[in-house]
Formats: sequence, C-alpha cells, structure tokens
Amino acid sequence: MRSILRGNLIQAPALGQLDCLPGGCLLLEDGVVRGVVPTPPEGWQEVPVTDYGNRLILQGFVDAHLHGPQYPMLGTAMDLPLLEWLERYAFPTEARFADPDYARAVYRALAADLAAHGTTRVVMFSSLHTDATLILMEELARAGLWGYVGKVNMDRNGGKNLQEDTEDSKRETLRWLEQCGVFAPQIRPILTPRFTPSCTDGLMAWLGALARERDLPVQSHLSENTGEIAWVRELHPGCAEYWESYAKFGLWNGRTAMAHCVHSSARERQAMREAGVLAVHCPDSNINLCSGVAPVRRMLDEGVSVALGSDIAAGACLGMLEVMSQTVRASKARSLLTDGADRPLTAAEAYYLGTTAGQRFFGVGAGFAAGERLHAVVVDDNALGPASGLTLPQRLERAIYRAGQAEICAVWAGGRQIGGQRGFL
Amino acid sequence: MRSILRGNLIQAPALGQLDCLPGGCLLLEDGVVRGVVPTPPEGWQEVPVTDYGNRLILQGFVDAHLHGPQYPMLGTAMDLPLLEWLERYAFPTEARFADPDYARAVYRALAADLAAHGTTRVVMFSSLHTDATLILMEELARAGLWGYVGKVNMDRNGGKNLQEDTEDSKRETLRWLEQCGVFAPQIRPILTPRFTPSCTDGLMAWLGALARERDLPVQSHLSENTGEIAWVRELHPGCAEYWESYAKFGLWNGRTAMAHCVHSSARERQAMREAGVLAVHCPDSNINLCSGVAPVRRMLDEGVSVALGSDIAAGACLGMLEVMSQTVRASKARSLLTDGADRPLTAAEAYYLGTTAGQRFFGVGAGFAAGERLHAVVVDDNALGPASGLTLPQRLERAIYRAGQAEICAVWAGGRQIGGQRGFL
Repeated sequence: MRSILRGNLIQAPALGQLDCLPGGCLLLEDGVVRGVVPTPPEGWQEVPVTDYGNRLILQGFVDAHLHGPQYPMLGTAMDLPLLEWLERYAFPTEARFADPDYARAVYRALAADLAAHGTTRVVMFSSLHTDATLILMEELARAGLWGYVGKVNMDRNGGKNLQEDTEDSKRETLRWLEQCGVFAPQIRPILTPRFTPSCTDGLMAWLGALARERDLPVQSHLSENTGEIAWVRELHPGCAEYWESYAKFGLWNGRTAMAHCVHSSARERQAMREAGVLAVHCPDSNINLCSGVAPVRRMLDEGVSVALGSDIAAGACLGMLEVMSQTVRASKARSLLTDGADRPLTAAEAYYLGTTAGQRFFGVGAGFAAGERLHAVVVDDNALGPASGLTLPQRLERAIYRAGQAEICAVWAGGRQIGGQRGFL
Repeated sequence: MRSILRGNLIQAPALGQLDCLPGGCLLLEDGVVRGVVPTPPEGWQEVPVTDYGNRLILQGFVDAHLHGPQYPMLGTAMDLPLLEWLERYAFPTEARFADPDYARAVYRALAADLAAHGTTRVVMFSSLHTDATLILMEELARAGLWGYVGKVNMDRNGGKNLQEDTEDSKRETLRWLEQCGVFAPQIRPILTPRFTPSCTDGLMAWLGALARERDLPVQSHLSENTGEIAWVRELHPGCAEYWESYAKFGLWNGRTAMAHCVHSSARERQAMREAGVLAVHCPDSNINLCSGVAPVRRMLDEGVSVALGSDIAAGACLGMLEVMSQTVRASKARSLLTDGADRPLTAAEAYYLGTTAGQRFFGVGAGFAAGERLHAVVVDDNALGPASGLTLPQRLERAIYRAGQAEICAVWAGGRQIGGQRGFL
C-alpha cells in the first residue's frame, strides 16, 4: 500500500550536510521509502497523505550504545569515575535483573521511553542474564524499535552477584542465541563481552570464534578511562594497546562497535579505520564520569566511523536530541582541551552522527534511504518559539538544543508509526 | 493568614550541605516563612494544609544572569565565539526591541516560561531601550517573578542600530529609574553598563556616581573571553586587569554582580572577594561560545561568592535545574582541563549555587529563610521513575539531571503561588 508523509524534511546525507525540503513528500510503499520529492509524482496523486504541516520530519535516531539494565539509575550516581562507579552503582543495579518480573517492568518502561524520545534503532547492552535479555528484546520489539541487543558476557571481576562461570557464560550465550531468533529481523543479537577486564582469554577466544562461525556483530567498550586502560595493560602485557586485546581474539572487524574511544591513540584510531570498527561516542557519559572527551573531530578527519550513544545510565540524557546537543558541547570542551586544535562540531554534524552514521551499522544508506523501511521522527517545534524567520537548519539546531519528549509528536520505525503522544495536524 | 505546605523539603543551608525533611511542613503567615518543621507545632494544628504528598519541595531558583531580549534566539546561533556572536546574532536581535509591541509579546512569553521552569528570582539584562525595559519589568511582575532588571547602557561599539549617544543614555537611564519605581519591591532596577567595551569612560563615571547617590546595585560582564579581555586592555591601558575598568568608576562593590569570570586571575578573584562582588557562573554559555570554564571550585575555596546564570541566549538552557546539571558537567570539564586539580562540583553544590547563593544577592538568608516571603518549586518526579529506594538527595540529583518543565507542578514566589501546570495531589 502506498502512502505519503508531508512536512519539512531534513536529511543528513553526509557529515555537516543537510538536505532540507520544506513541505516535501516522503513516498512510502508498505512502509518502505520510495523517494523524497517536492510534490507527488505521476501515479502518486491519489495516494493518502499524512500532512505534518509546518513540523519537522527528521530521520529516526540511532542510539548506538546504551545499557538497558542501568535505566533504573538514570540521573543519579554522578560522583565517581568509571571503575568505582561500576562497582558501587552499576553492577549492583544490573544484578537485580536476575529477577524476570523486575526486568519486565523496567524494560517495558524503557522501551516506551526510548520510542517517545524518537530513538528508533538501538545497539544495546543487556545484563548477563539470559532471561532478562530475552525480555528486553521482546519489549523492544513490542514497542516497535529496531536494533541489536547483547546478553553481556562477564566471567571475571564482576563481584559476587554479577559474574558467570566461563562454561555457564558459553552455555547461556548459546541458549540466548537459540531463543532470540524469534525477534529477528527487528531485534537481533550482538555478541557482547562487557570489556576486557570482565572476560577471561578463554571466553574471549570462544566469543571470537562464535562471531566468525555465526557471522555475528560484536560490541564492547574501548579506552574509556585511564585507570581502565592501565588495568587492561596489566591483564594483557602482550598487547601494546587496548584494542589488541579484542583484535587478538577475532573481535575486531567491520561489524564491531566500540563505545567511548576517549583515549584512543593515533595507532588505535588507525586500527579502527583499517578494520572498519565503529567508534560510538558517548559525550554525556564521558563528562559525567570524568573520563575525558573523545577526539571525535580527529577520528572523523581520519576517516574513522563515529556514531553516537546515550550510554545511559552513565549518560543522563535518554533522548538523542539531547545527546546531539551534548555532542556539540563536548566537542567545544575538547576544543578548549586542545587549545583550539580540535575544531568543534556543529549541530548539523551532530545530527548526522546521531542518524545516518548510526544507520550505517545496520547496513542502511544515508538519509531517508530509498528501499529501506522508514525510520522518522516528527518534531513539533511550535512551543519552542516562532518559526518565522528561521531557516530549517536553524529550526533543527533549536530542536537539538531545546526539544524534549513533549515536542516529539510522531515516531516511525520499521515502516510503521510506533509512537506519538499528540494527534496529527 | 496562616497556611502550611507539606512535602519532602530540601534546603541548601551551605555549599554541599542538604537539609532534607521528608513529609515536612513549611509554616506560612501571609506568605512569609515562619518555620520548617516535621509536624505542625502548638497553634498550627487547625491551619489549612496544602499537601504535596511525596513530591519534592525545593527552594525557588535564582537565575542571576540572563538577557531578556535574546530570548527569541534561544537554542540557535551556537557557532561563533563571543565578540563575533554579539555582532552577528545578539545585537541585531536586541535591536528589534525598539518596537514596544514586539517587546510585549516576547517578554510576556519569557516571563511565563521562566515561571513554569521554577525561576522565581532573576538578575537580568534588558536591552538599551527604556520602554522595552519597562515592559519587561511589568511582564515579570505580572507573572509573579521577583528580581532586578537593568536597562542596558551602551554608548560605543554597538553598531548602527544598538547604540546610544552618551547624553541620551544618561537621560534615558534617569527616565527609566523615574518610571520603574511602580514595580518595586518586586522588580527593582539595577544599573547595567553592558561591558567595558560598550561604555565610554564618561558614561561609566556617571553610572558609578549614580549607583552611589541612589544606592543602586550594578551588573555587568567580566573576563568572559580572551579576545574581549585583550580588547579591554587596549581600551584601558592603565588597568592591569579587567575588573579595574569597573572599579575605577565606582562600579565594584558588595552590590555588584559580574557574569562569567571565566579567565579571572588570582588577583581578580581576590578583588572580588575583598569587595564582595558576586561572580555569576554561566556554564552553558561559556561552553557554547567556547569561552572556557570558570574556576568555580577555586573561587568557592577562596571565599568568592558565586551564583548561577542561564545567560540565555548564549546559554541554551532556560530552566535552572538544567543549568545546575550543566554546572556539574562544566566543573568536570574544568577538572579535565586542570588535570584534576580543580575538584568537580556535586549536584548538591550546584543546587546551593542555584538557590541560596543567589538569594544572598537579594539580602535573603539560606534555605527557606524564616521571615522572608516563600520562594519554592514543587517537583513531581514520578515520571522520572520509581522513588522507592532513593534517598531525597538522590531524588534531588535525578531531578537536576532529568526534570523539565513537565515535572514542575507548582511554583511559589513572593509568598504566593505563581505557576503550576498541573493540579495538586
């Protein structure tokens, strides 16, 4: 079935570029994008139109790094650096997801919250609990989101209540992979060794082999904090740099997403570019835990792929518009830290990183990619002040800085409308 | 008439301290605070109670630096440093306030927006236009806010459309002072030389004399940006530091508020402490314009008074809860910039800076000061997640990071309720 969405279309075809089409038309066929045009072409004149009027139609937001089981801590516990923060706050919070009823309640609320904020695709950590992970996948699917979710592997350094035996970890991983196929293609599995300090060499090697055998993507953490990096060096004296502790086990390729990369050296960045590893920048988390500010401008200049993550709950911003504005702010802090050497990012660049750059991890082209199911967020910026006199790029910038859940009036994911608190025009 | 507000009371008696009283009572007599107690004392048992249940009752927020006529630009124009930003964006926007009808519409919306976000006291810049300034004062008073508002003086370097003759500036200042008395004590005048580059020596000297004669407070900008500081040095070769360009004209005393102080040296900070000048920290603005991050921890350790300002529209956060969270974030960027030497601020400290520290400029004591008209903000944090298991300081932290206008369910200023989008319990 054909349909048309009309409104002010804003696409990010490339870093720093915006394609704006005021009052344009998104042509859909069974939810799949067939074109982005100023007016309906031949054969589309009689097709039903959903007219969003003067509202902004943005690409769906991709949150490429977040921790589902940390959602209960969101906005609290901002007073410690990474390793102490994990031990004191994050691990005890995640341990509660041994209880499936608790997991169900939290994950249902989280999925709804993500959808309401315009996040349509996620690359997400669950906890080590298989059942809770399946519940998370089910709740995301039920809410209409798309994405990758990983049962976390951690067979060391998790403390008493958040650690697996190596053999249990393998067995549970296989059980999870067996059972989660039902959520595909909407929600798919991604192998998730928590980070090098959490996984023995044996488990890492097994995960690397599994990734190859089953052609699975991989996510983990990289070079977030100097204490963590020193720890990895102790654990892997044979690795000159952190990334090698993944690469040596086959966990470093074009389907790998690595969160943070705050302290990645030129050599580590080169290894990312050469392997096609995605760096997921989590600006709010990195400031909140005093980790530092990732060299995003340098990575982009060097050709490293970078997407954005909320990293809740070390990040306190669940909505990706807010993550985009924190991306610009963090890039300015980085500019100050480098005496201006690293040029700040613009709002338009942050929009690209939070949309098109994340879509790439899903194999999806730029913008409202033709041939793909529609992912879109409709923003009503009326409450943010008069739009008259503002260009569409200015209205996008204002939405990034000022729009919250209240301004998101419709959300489309996978070709269908999944959310929208308020009615249409 | 006596009345009681009941709820979870959170006061900041001193930097980093929180006085929390779960289910406590605020005793009011004609809107004036008579006490903060666990249960109604003798003689108060029959008094009507407004019960806010499990909600948080916070002190009213003080926004100690913002520019009313920049409200139309909020959330846009974040791509230039200070001096270029003023010339390209801020000055043309302010020039529009020559039109009283435009001023009326903008200022009515701004006053409502501030109240809805829990700002109950402001220290605020208008533009140079006398009539628009009177309109701003009237609209703030009508919305129930309290504060200081200044007609801006600028007789040089404003460009064609935003500059006064020196004599006009003096005459208009006197006309403004004559006419604004009607808004006292709620909204009072504050002398406002924009910043040293905007005012000739003759105008500065006249303003200094006027401040002394009429016992008026003063606000301006100080050491925001390195380009600005260099310019002041050229303009005042006799002044070793920026602050002296105010001090030499009698604009530097215990009733002076200076926004920014990003690059204030130890000597400038000492001059602030000795004179009792208030430093107004504007964290979001300072990051957005790449100005730097003020040494707030140092200033506090040294005994300098520091309050918070949204500095809209160089700051993109209108609500002070958001300004508080950006204060913590900026302090972490500062910690990174100083290799950990400047310890980050906590959420509790930011709450103090955004409430009690600002109240001091109004001569009001700490917390819900007894003998003063009540200023309070009631926060319904139910939508932010379960409160069970969280302490009141944790709930305050979460509100600072996560609450927006939607969570602010009642606002009291000057002893009466001025806002509240949603009903009571």
